[in-house]
Amino acid sequence: MFTHEIQQRVRYSETDKMGYLYYGHYPHYYEVARAEMLRSIGHTYQEMEDVHGILMPVMTLNIRYIRPAYYDDLLTIKTSLRKLPATTITFHTDTFNSKDELMSGGSVKLCFVDRKTNESVPAPAYLLEALQPFFV
Amino acid sequence: MFTHEIQQRVRYSETDKMGYLYYGHYPHYYEVARAEMLRSIGHTYQEMEDVHGILMPVMTLNIRYIRPAYYDDLLTIKTSLRKLPATTITFHTDTFNSKDELMSGGSVKLCFVDRKTNESVPAPAYLLEALQPFFV
Amino acid sequence: MFTHEIQQRVRYSETDKMGYLYYGHYPHYYEVARAEMLRSIGHTYQEMEDVHGILMPVMTLNIRYIRPAYYDDLLTIKTSLRKLPATTITFHTDTFNSKDELMSGGSVKLCFVDRKTNESVPAPAYLLEALQPFFV
Amino acid sequence: MFTHEIQQRVRYSETDKMGYLYYGHYPHYYEVARAEMLRSIGHTYQEMEDVHGILMPVMTLNIRYIRPAYYDDLLTIKTSLRKLPATTITFHTDTFNSKDELMSGGSVKLCFVDRKTNESVPAPAYLLEALQPFFV
Repeated sequence: MFTHEIQQRVRYSETDKMGYLYYGHYPHYYEVARAEMLRSIGHTYQEMEDVHGILMPVMTLNIRYIRPAYYDDLLTIKTSLRKLPATTITFHTDTFNSKDELMSGGSVKLCFVDRKTNESVPAPAYLLEALQPFFV
Repeated sequence: MFTHEIQQRVRYSETDKMGYLYYGHYPHYYEVARAEMLRSIGHTYQEMEDVHGILMPVMTLNIRYIRPAYYDDLLTIKTSLRKLPATTITFHTDTFNSKDELMSGGSVKLCFVDRKTNESVPAPAYLLEALQPFFV
Repeated sequence: MFTHEIQQRVRYSETDKMGYLYYGHYPHYYEVARAEMLRSIGHTYQEMEDVHGILMPVMTLNIRYIRPAYYDDLLTIKTSLRKLPATTITFHTDTFNSKDELMSGGSVKLCFVDRKTNESVPAPAYLLEALQPFFV
Repeated sequence: MFTHEIQQRVRYSETDKMGYLYYGHYPHYYEVARAEMLRSIGHTYQEMEDVHGILMPVMTLNIRYIRPAYYDDLLTIKTSLRKLPATTITFHTDTFNSKDELMSGGSVKLCFVDRKTNESVPAPAYLLEALQPFFV
């Protein structure tokens, strides 16, 4: 298993009139968490798109909201890969508030698409190589 | 079953660098669909919060992305209630592009919370009354 | 002068913890207003980008906020061109609430950029032609 | 003069189909910059609203876009107060890309509103006190 952790502070723009972090902004945080997870193993989304020509569209998104988050809360976002990607990759994300209480759990499954052919392709070799050490 | 339909045109602000409707904006559309569904039976979210003192936080969100949507696409968003709400209410939402192809399917489960006590409460009677005719 | 009008209802996702339409969402509405203005004279942004290869990056944005807008308010957004575009185009936008009170005034200046050369170009002839009748 | 600096990395959700940081997201960054500037002198927006009962609605927003920002760019956002706030406060914000090139300049003027009376009030004494050392 490969786990990575980031922190995000809830912006005013992300709150709603209930005073909560709006439920539709969690996917934005998950995306940042995925990007930083990749960066932590020496790669970037940017490079995947621009150098390797691979897009990663989202196939499914699931979120369970347990406690609300509020403006200015400093959230800890823990993202895990439970297995090596194949034709798809699934990120599991748990979000904790500053009291270390679980706020929400979610998962996002993405696939790999060749930018030119617009066809689904397997996870690129360079990504598998970078991830392998976490799955032995 | 109660089904309601709205149309939404994809804004430039809602696209991402892939040229797709960003996956995190679907929940915004679902929210608009829920609000308009309520309005179609003579009620509003606004009134639920301000007059009846009931908030409706989201408990779970599930989305399956089938085809991407693009800038300026005119989407048809069909939202259904498959059963009467009790302590929770679940909206099922299918989104179609202008060729009437299914783009994505999703569901959102919300609960009812009393604004003053911050406690979970059952679906308000006035809402059940308005919905009952669709479930006979 | 060419003036066009659209209506937009404030989404829950667009409110903030003050209960106001968040100040950063006005530019999104302005963009929708510009797109619909173009559509009203038989053209689209989409076509400008995809067929004519012209991008329209924003150069300046100015907004004066007079009264707040709230969730579910049905806003009227009036956009005007005060003169024909040349190397730039400036849209003036006044926003009114449902009591027809002026909520905010703003302007957005954009230029025209050739997608291939990434160079600034004059307003395309087909656009000038479509606009000319409003400026005689 | 009081100047404060933060860094923000452009999120995928903040890009548009041109591949640019969408022009409407700059105000979100400015807001984060203001909040962190306050925090750097020992105060928070949160506290201003919740403890002191003062809201800070935006009165005017001006942005000049000079160069586009792209996905994953690490931006430096420099915010300055050029004078002590009175009945209004104006933040000037310059944004630089990772090559230290000026990307955009902007200003935001806000006022202070008493939450209970909904009336405009002068800048709170505790804020003036915290800022005074920078203006001697």
